[in-house]
Amino acid sequence: MKLLEEKIKTCGRILPGNVLKVDSFLNHQIDVKLISALGEEWKRLYENEKITKILTIEASGIGIACIAALHFNVPVVFAKKSKSSNIGNDFYTSKVVSYTHGNTYDVIVSKNYISPDDKILIIDDFLANGSALKALVNICRAAGATVVGAGIAIEKAYQPGGKMIRDMGIRVESLAMISSMNETDGVVFCN
Amino acid sequence: MKLLEEKIKTCGRILPGNVLKVDSFLNHQIDVKLISALGEEWKRLYENEKITKILTIEASGIGIACIAALHFNVPVVFAKKSKSSNIGNDFYTSKVVSYTHGNTYDVIVSKNYISPDDKILIIDDFLANGSALKALVNICRAAGATVVGAGIAIEKAYQPGGKMIRDMGIRVESLAMISSMNETDGVVFCN
Repeated sequence: MKLLEEKIKTCGRILPGNVLKVDSFLNHQIDVKLISALGEEWKRLYENEKITKILTIEASGIGIACIAALHFNVPVVFAKKSKSSNIGNDFYTSKVVSYTHGNTYDVIVSKNYISPDDKILIIDDFLANGSALKALVNICRAAGATVVGAGIAIEKAYQPGGKMIRDMGIRVESLAMISSMNETDGVVFCN
Repeated sequence: MKLLEEKIKTCGRILPGNVLKVDSFLNHQIDVKLISALGEEWKRLYENEKITKILTIEASGIGIACIAALHFNVPVVFAKKSKSSNIGNDFYTSKVVSYTHGNTYDVIVSKNYISPDDKILIIDDFLANGSALKALVNICRAAGATVVGAGIAIEKAYQPGGKMIRDMGIRVESLAMISSMNETDGVVFCN
């Protein structure tokens, strides 16, 4: 999606350690007009699917998912990072490995809010190693819900997450796909 | 606001320890249509103010703030819970006491995203003891920005936060104000 690619080129910053900083419009300050355009594009891409719910993960997925959900006219559920290891039987749970922060944590979703009748679109800001997205797919499958697909803002296509998730049979629509980036050449997008 | 009060009466649950559970529509599953109506109402209430930015706090404020921001056509900034005590000089920081979780944490906002020119509306889901809201006000004031007011979904008016913030000279518009609640009588709203 040209609009997002241009925004990344103009406002994104590449930091040492292969970090793409997009906190001026995506995950600290949020350009809600831009995000609404992303939501409109996911709606177009998933037009023929009867999506009943959007699932995302706190914190930076929430804003994007909520704005996208207005285009789909469905509720959002966001998976929470669990603070406790003893969460009882009321939640679906799955593990996420964070390569950015070098730790592992559990995410949880109340069993009240995903059911076998649900056709779910998963929305997130980034897809890199795919651990968060895989956890959300696992939670949907544990609930017996159908994962219609994923809507990702920025995919780092040179990292393994996209292939891993597509190999699970999940449709993934990433609106900006980065083939490479470094401080000299900047961000290069897939064609 | 009748729509929100009705929703709380219908879908809210009162748990032991004076906890109002609204995770079916506000802070786990999110009813985006309802939230959009809240955004419209805040827009009406703050119609004559030239708001330049909406500030909120992760995680459960983000969705509400983003949907409200579409009505104001301004960006959202969300304060992040800091994981590290050494955050350098690039952030404004303030302390929040969580009575729910019995701990204290720092919230941070990048200095890039609030400036003295900003006229800020603070949005959050709950106002009870007011610690989170006070931290956001402190951050705005440290940045030299103007706090135009706060838009709160649910205020527990029998707790001290609302008075404390109003005594700081901040306009607070809470769309549902609870005067009392318990498991026998349910939720009672202020007139």
